[in-house]
Amino acid sequence: MITGKNYIGEELSATGSVIYKTIDPEANTENEFVFYEATKEEVNKAADKASKAFEVYKNKSANEKARFLEAIASEIEALGKELTNIYSKESALPEGRAKGECARTSSQLRSFSEMLKEGSWVETIISKAEGKPDIRRILTPLGPIAVFGASNFPFAFSTAGGDTASALAAGCPVIVKSHPLHAGTGEMVSRAILKAAKETGMPDGVFSNLNSSGIEVGQWLVKHSKIKAVGFTGSIKAGTALCKLAAEREEPIPVYAEMGSVNPVVILPSALKNNAEEWAEKYAGSITAGTGQFCTNPGLILGIKGEGFDRFVRVLGESLEKIEPTCMLHPNIKKQYETSTLELLSQKGFTKVGASSKEIKVNYARQQIIAVDGETFLKNKNFHKEVFGPFSVVVKCNDKKQLLENIRNLEGQLTGTILNSEEKELQDFAEIIDALKSRVGRLIFNGVPTGVEVCAAMTHGGPFPATSDSKFTSVGLTAVKRWVRPVSYQDWPNSILPKELKNENPLGISRNVNGKITKDSL
Amino acid sequence: MITGKNYIGEELSATGSVIYKTIDPEANTENEFVFYEATKEEVNKAADKASKAFEVYKNKSANEKARFLEAIASEIEALGKELTNIYSKESALPEGRAKGECARTSSQLRSFSEMLKEGSWVETIISKAEGKPDIRRILTPLGPIAVFGASNFPFAFSTAGGDTASALAAGCPVIVKSHPLHAGTGEMVSRAILKAAKETGMPDGVFSNLNSSGIEVGQWLVKHSKIKAVGFTGSIKAGTALCKLAAEREEPIPVYAEMGSVNPVVILPSALKNNAEEWAEKYAGSITAGTGQFCTNPGLILGIKGEGFDRFVRVLGESLEKIEPTCMLHPNIKKQYETSTLELLSQKGFTKVGASSKEIKVNYARQQIIAVDGETFLKNKNFHKEVFGPFSVVVKCNDKKQLLENIRNLEGQLTGTILNSEEKELQDFAEIIDALKSRVGRLIFNGVPTGVEVCAAMTHGGPFPATSDSKFTSVGLTAVKRWVRPVSYQDWPNSILPKELKNENPLGISRNVNGKITKDSL
Repeated sequence: MITGKNYIGEELSATGSVIYKTIDPEANTENEFVFYEATKEEVNKAADKASKAFEVYKNKSANEKARFLEAIASEIEALGKELTNIYSKESALPEGRAKGECARTSSQLRSFSEMLKEGSWVETIISKAEGKPDIRRILTPLGPIAVFGASNFPFAFSTAGGDTASALAAGCPVIVKSHPLHAGTGEMVSRAILKAAKETGMPDGVFSNLNSSGIEVGQWLVKHSKIKAVGFTGSIKAGTALCKLAAEREEPIPVYAEMGSVNPVVILPSALKNNAEEWAEKYAGSITAGTGQFCTNPGLILGIKGEGFDRFVRVLGESLEKIEPTCMLHPNIKKQYETSTLELLSQKGFTKVGASSKEIKVNYARQQIIAVDGETFLKNKNFHKEVFGPFSVVVKCNDKKQLLENIRNLEGQLTGTILNSEEKELQDFAEIIDALKSRVGRLIFNGVPTGVEVCAAMTHGGPFPATSDSKFTSVGLTAVKRWVRPVSYQDWPNSILPKELKNENPLGISRNVNGKITKDSL
Repeated sequence: MITGKNYIGEELSATGSVIYKTIDPEANTENEFVFYEATKEEVNKAADKASKAFEVYKNKSANEKARFLEAIASEIEALGKELTNIYSKESALPEGRAKGECARTSSQLRSFSEMLKEGSWVETIISKAEGKPDIRRILTPLGPIAVFGASNFPFAFSTAGGDTASALAAGCPVIVKSHPLHAGTGEMVSRAILKAAKETGMPDGVFSNLNSSGIEVGQWLVKHSKIKAVGFTGSIKAGTALCKLAAEREEPIPVYAEMGSVNPVVILPSALKNNAEEWAEKYAGSITAGTGQFCTNPGLILGIKGEGFDRFVRVLGESLEKIEPTCMLHPNIKKQYETSTLELLSQKGFTKVGASSKEIKVNYARQQIIAVDGETFLKNKNFHKEVFGPFSVVVKCNDKKQLLENIRNLEGQLTGTILNSEEKELQDFAEIIDALKSRVGRLIFNGVPTGVEVCAAMTHGGPFPATSDSKFTSVGLTAVKRWVRPVSYQDWPNSILPKELKNENPLGISRNVNGKITKDSL
């Protein structure tokens, strides 16, 4: 089933000598398959094929591209248990999660397919006035895209995840730099994509999958002149390095990197009057969900000192201790988790809120929460850093003023959450809510940040360093906007205008005509 | 009338010791006013004020911001002849151009005002389904913006030009780095903006104007942590330097730089059958319009060798020679024009098409066109470079294949033009048109690229190096999208949602509710 080879378009290729295996973190053993890292020649070949495929793929109709995306979804689903088994053996993520994430991946592909069939996503604008040029604008695809899969979502943010689905929907070929932690899962999903491409008549090179255990393959891709944009999910360090590399190219290209976030949760006093225990239990669950390996993991909880907050913190610690520890994605991630927590625990000025004291198996994470006061948090930026895993910092502020100051001192985040139970309190805390809003891409009210709904209104993005470009989301339909640019046609003959711009509006899409949204023909 | 001082918000300030004057290029003398370059402290003060003003300005209603923009337009118009006189004395641009550009600037401000009053530009998306979180997305302003005025449009791309108008419309305070060539014009326009701000109750710091004769003021601005994005119009060298500076910041920020373009014009054989002379005359006019100092100046004309193209080129040269030379914007720009043309004329393999042989006054430009064959153009990239001024290169290709190869070899451009007179020919040249499309932001049919209509459908942008980010335009209503980012509200109480997201849709804007565009309440 798993060949360990690269897919250069449809072609299996393994000309390199660097090999590696994936690891079953639960068993702490190597999985059987051997993977061949792509060589520079293989990277070049994939880029050449993608560039050639672009000339054909970009001119496929919306319906043809939609069928391709649907076929990918079906082919992935058809793999069933065989696929979810490998997924779990390469990530230690349980069967339920595997199924859920797989379903999310297919449904994401189908959402983009629906978007294509509906057709209005190309943002047609037509400006037409007596005595002025006739200008018609449409979004057009950029070209081949490099996608860097994430460690923590082997399906939904990897090979056929949101970046790939949105880029293919935009009309851009994709080259995936396979994530080394789940190269087998990646190969199986790649095969499904390529099978779908063949079924639906897509050009060879519309998709490639390159194995990589180090950083070189990724660097070659980002520097390749035929790659026109990059999608990335991972660490701040790797993401910013790729951004710099892309900015230094002769032709700089955009890198859409979703990086780090501690997802601050601000508990307003009213939330704790009657619900301190309930919120504490919910948050203990959110912090440990997926072994804390979600980009929306609540790593920071801020509140104002008092009886309610004390009670919340106490129950939070107790609830956390009751939760069974779970396995991390990889021994190296476990090691990194230990290093990061030890670094924090070597800082001064914190108290322990709770930690699992159970015996833990190898590669399992010991969940932990610590608390600092508002002044310490203001001064010591180490407590602001993301710890990838089930770890959170509680910040006990003296008053509203200190809480505000601490929020204003935060870096950019994917999410920010407000807990509250009395509407009039929201007016008193308006400045705090406003400060939080200015630092995040998504504001949650009375909920937990984990769980990112795939829908048109979602923003999974945020100010730096949460992402490299806060203008875009990597989840939801508007994720497609990363891979397109506007082109305007001036006084163009109707016969050779793209269908979306023709007088008769043959696709029946919604268009902005002189400021009015209409499906009418001109 | 002109103090020569910086505007740090409403406050006139001149604490520095670097002074400079502007030049009247027509008279070749210095203008009387002395300008004081901003110091680092003044830059910091302007950034602090802008940051504070942002907290107030972003919460002003759409109607309040609309009134501010309208007041700016009126205040600029009220300056009348006093303003256009200084404009001409600092640019050598004639009175007609001054009036036209001034009218364009006001009308641009009023377009953004209309956009604000209508309100749907914030791209509201509401996703609401049984059993799922309620997610509502809106665009929100980034923060203080630095705007670098252009040398060639003292009104429309400078102090109160498209960048400033769109940023203020977005809800972002603006700090203008005044262009040294027209610092007096900049000061007068700044005063109009500040008067409008006062009249309409805008916070101090919503606008500042900093004088600068070198590169430091700009660098300080781009590096300042309180600046959140940059708008720039100018050279590739300066634009890419600012992009790199911004990418190296602790918090990288976007730079929207509109830089260089030679605006290729592709003449298909049919266009020359009956219209060779007409097109030649039109193009001689377009090449010399505004002394060739437009970013959309047609610097490159490609066609296929033959009787028609020969005739076109001959008449183009003759027409060019009949046109009266005009004055450039500045002695340094004239000097640069001479250096660039001499560099090109030192290359091998070109023939002269035409050049003004008249006596020219100091600072006037001698317009010139040369021709190379397709092979020379393919090999020698020097002929691809933009010469800022009334200079063009004609490329005589052997056949369709060589023409295609040459187009594929071009860098990114603001515009590309196709001349044609027979519709069936367009099918034969489909590959060439497609190749041109992939390299430009605007495709013009049977026209000249000079003249950029300000309308919703306009794209004044294009692949690198035409701009630093091909996703955005600097002209037209969508220019506002550079200064905003999406934020999603999850399960937020209706009472504290922004008006644009409230159930009752109090502003009556068009919203995307579960995929349907509607003005209905929920």
